[in-house]
Amino acid sequence: MENYNKLVEHYKTIANYNHLSAICGWDAAAMMPSGGNQARSEAMAQLSLHIHQLSTAPHLSDLINQAQDENLSAPEHASLREMKRQWQLSTVVPEDLVKAKSLAGSKCEHAWRTQRGANDWSGFCNNFEEVVNLSQQEAQIRGEVAGLTPYDAMLDIYEPGVNSEQLNSIFGDLTSWLPELTQQVQDKQKQESVHTSNESYSTSAQNALGLEVMSLLNFDFEHGRLDISSHPFCGGVPEDVRITTRYDEQDFVQSLMGIVHETGHARYEQGLPRQWAGLPAGQARSMGIHESQSLFFEMQLGRSDPFIANLAPLARQHFKGNDPSVFEANNLKKIYTRVQPGYIRVDADELTYPAHVILRYEIERDLMNGKISYKDIPELWDNKMQQYLGLSTKDNYKDGCMQDIHWTDAQRNQSHNYKNGCMQDIHWCDGSFGYFPSYTLGAMYAAQQMATIKKLMNVDEIIQSGDLTPIFDWLDTNIWKKASLFTTDDLMTQATGEALNPLHFRKHLEERYLK
Amino acid sequence: MENYNKLVEHYKTIANYNHLSAICGWDAAAMMPSGGNQARSEAMAQLSLHIHQLSTAPHLSDLINQAQDENLSAPEHASLREMKRQWQLSTVVPEDLVKAKSLAGSKCEHAWRTQRGANDWSGFCNNFEEVVNLSQQEAQIRGEVAGLTPYDAMLDIYEPGVNSEQLNSIFGDLTSWLPELTQQVQDKQKQESVHTSNESYSTSAQNALGLEVMSLLNFDFEHGRLDISSHPFCGGVPEDVRITTRYDEQDFVQSLMGIVHETGHARYEQGLPRQWAGLPAGQARSMGIHESQSLFFEMQLGRSDPFIANLAPLARQHFKGNDPSVFEANNLKKIYTRVQPGYIRVDADELTYPAHVILRYEIERDLMNGKISYKDIPELWDNKMQQYLGLSTKDNYKDGCMQDIHWTDAQRNQSHNYKNGCMQDIHWCDGSFGYFPSYTLGAMYAAQQMATIKKLMNVDEIIQSGDLTPIFDWLDTNIWKKASLFTTDDLMTQATGEALNPLHFRKHLEERYLK
Repeated sequence: MENYNKLVEHYKTIANYNHLSAICGWDAAAMMPSGGNQARSEAMAQLSLHIHQLSTAPHLSDLINQAQDENLSAPEHASLREMKRQWQLSTVVPEDLVKAKSLAGSKCEHAWRTQRGANDWSGFCNNFEEVVNLSQQEAQIRGEVAGLTPYDAMLDIYEPGVNSEQLNSIFGDLTSWLPELTQQVQDKQKQESVHTSNESYSTSAQNALGLEVMSLLNFDFEHGRLDISSHPFCGGVPEDVRITTRYDEQDFVQSLMGIVHETGHARYEQGLPRQWAGLPAGQARSMGIHESQSLFFEMQLGRSDPFIANLAPLARQHFKGNDPSVFEANNLKKIYTRVQPGYIRVDADELTYPAHVILRYEIERDLMNGKISYKDIPELWDNKMQQYLGLSTKDNYKDGCMQDIHWTDAQRNQSHNYKNGCMQDIHWCDGSFGYFPSYTLGAMYAAQQMATIKKLMNVDEIIQSGDLTPIFDWLDTNIWKKASLFTTDDLMTQATGEALNPLHFRKHLEERYLK
Repeated sequence: MENYNKLVEHYKTIANYNHLSAICGWDAAAMMPSGGNQARSEAMAQLSLHIHQLSTAPHLSDLINQAQDENLSAPEHASLREMKRQWQLSTVVPEDLVKAKSLAGSKCEHAWRTQRGANDWSGFCNNFEEVVNLSQQEAQIRGEVAGLTPYDAMLDIYEPGVNSEQLNSIFGDLTSWLPELTQQVQDKQKQESVHTSNESYSTSAQNALGLEVMSLLNFDFEHGRLDISSHPFCGGVPEDVRITTRYDEQDFVQSLMGIVHETGHARYEQGLPRQWAGLPAGQARSMGIHESQSLFFEMQLGRSDPFIANLAPLARQHFKGNDPSVFEANNLKKIYTRVQPGYIRVDADELTYPAHVILRYEIERDLMNGKISYKDIPELWDNKMQQYLGLSTKDNYKDGCMQDIHWTDAQRNQSHNYKNGCMQDIHWCDGSFGYFPSYTLGAMYAAQQMATIKKLMNVDEIIQSGDLTPIFDWLDTNIWKKASLFTTDDLMTQATGEALNPLHFRKHLEERYLK
């Protein structure tokens, strides 16, 4: 075990540096005054370089090869498998290409900040062309080494084991019934009246309510905290998880469910097995599984009838001066299940969200595989928006294909990002093609997990009781404590009796929105 | 300049890691939930080791030697001098001794936490003996290399250029008149009545007042912030200075002047010259000069009549529900200049503070030079307390020699600590003998700086106007922007026309307390 033990020590060293990077990254988003930005960026770049050097250290290759022949237990074998995976992901792309891509990405993102507002697609393309070009090179190289198509090789960074053949089938199925379902639900909801209010909801009351809801979700405040940042995320380390939200005094709705969402990410991190702390096998399984936990909390629990019934009196209590009829359970439910196709992915509801993901998937897949040019994106975007959501984005780049260039909620899985050693932000501008499918995969995994739990216990009664521990115990045993010790397919099969089955998602949506 | 430039690059790399260490250190004190402690400690230890390796890299010696012959400007020569100084301080003590001392210090400090409350001196000595023993070895080694007595070599870490011959003379002079002055002031103050209150002062009002006072002191909120920690300090980096305070709802007095004090440290850091950022020459000159800035703010400005006159209406405004007679300027002045000998250094007033420092100096000097044993400390402590402050600490270890073992306000100068690459906390328990004189040297430097400024401008009028910029401009030009480009003596001579002259301190005290 000499070689394996050396690897363990090495990866724990990397984890220590990732810890510092995660905390300073959180600080930059939640605490740092603007004047600290330049010095911080330089310090973080130095640290990233150091982590990159450790992650790609040439002697790791020999250690990994020699450790294969050592007398390892089954979990140690899984651990070694994940080390090998990380080493390969980190080393396969030549340094020069990594640097060029990072530079092109920064340049593109910086210009995008003003170009989006100006709806300036052609200006944007001046930089974006290079990003696409370098990303295609990366995808090509990764694909050749892994024996995959270029796009599947990119996908494999975020969602190991998933390929576009699968996605084509799953997403193809979705697009065959989702537009119609959306229409049906919209028709149904047209007859309902939702009571909203123009009142102001103080930040401090929203914060107090958020903290109480986190407690209801058993967030471990000994190992984490809630703060404010302009883009909500879940950062920090499993021993000290930092989630953030932003408060809009005109609207308590978004922040509240945002906190529930981030609490799902946080509890996954907090629940990861400590005996594998710092090792690749002890980290979250994939972006999709991470998203499955946040969406389990937000969609499966947070928007359920009994949860909203519990939320209602809490909201009434914290927003004492506000119109109480808004927080009446039935009205709150209508607010939280309102379906309305729109242009912007991050503002989308549960039902229309997959359309945003699928159109991005179809575009980035063909782009990475060289079947389309970046110039084709606006027209494809418009066509697909019309097909899936009945909206046109013709000539409207800023609410169309230029919306998702920016840093979104991706930093949430920071530790997971570093795990792969090859990225920090997730967006096309940085050339992070292949990430988007994780969102909808997550929604499907979550529905499937809930379907299994519902066979084992009376979920509604448990949520109603206010003590959700039995549900969390199931997640803890079947998802959190498994970390990356199994492939995603094995993880899901052990937990639910089958690999990903999108039927559960469809049933969940029909149950919630047509009932 | 090839070698010098390599050194610059190397020290900027170290500064980047120190940046991350400073932010994560601040986070641990101000933000981190308790459950994050172990993982953080491990990550910080990893980083410290890395910084230590960079600071002691053997090739630096050659680079420094070869750079001496390069064509350097005067400031570059000063920069090289400071690099050499840091390299020597970091490398002169053998690794084994550094590790043993760190281990013994942690053990001693951990046990002290319960031993102090139990007044358990003999239990404490079981660990403290080893700390003293190892520190004496360190002092011996440093002394031999530097051609200094063991204690002077320790002193040199914190206060380069100052030796015990000087301190004996300065502190000897102080002890010849300070006890009598203290008595005189106490007699005078006996006849005055001070109005205090048992009311509660809300944390949020204290915080708002603190922030307003920081603005009055031109704290740059684009490059820093105020938070809460159990031990107030000034941390972070010059580009992003983090100061902390703690709030006691029964007492707004301490926190308010504590904020003024830390703002002094902060403005020094914020004012350091950016063109020397990251280099040893660009850092604060010494612990004593750092303390001179905090005490300039707290004592020279903060407790002055015109400043208190400005403070009074602000306090009245922020503590609206509280008894306004407490904040009447004349009363506030009495509160902030009350003299009362006590056992505890950190609670001492301006007049009795030096006695606490001098007794520690005399003890640690003789201890490091092997003239006394650690066993002699309680008796010496008691004798000196009686002599200087008229109080006995016989058999009262917890308020006597066991009080100052703990982390106090030293972390404030974190960046400066790292600068020396050999310590993080400052106390006897960690074997940081030689630090205490800096406090009183700082008070003297501050009085001397103010005496010079008063010759140049009408300080009272300026403070009264509420725009203190002319005073800060003088400090910025004469102290902050000079960083470590000159020796302390040269710095003070250029700024005030003479090296340290304790007469200014005596005049200041007599003026304030006897007038």
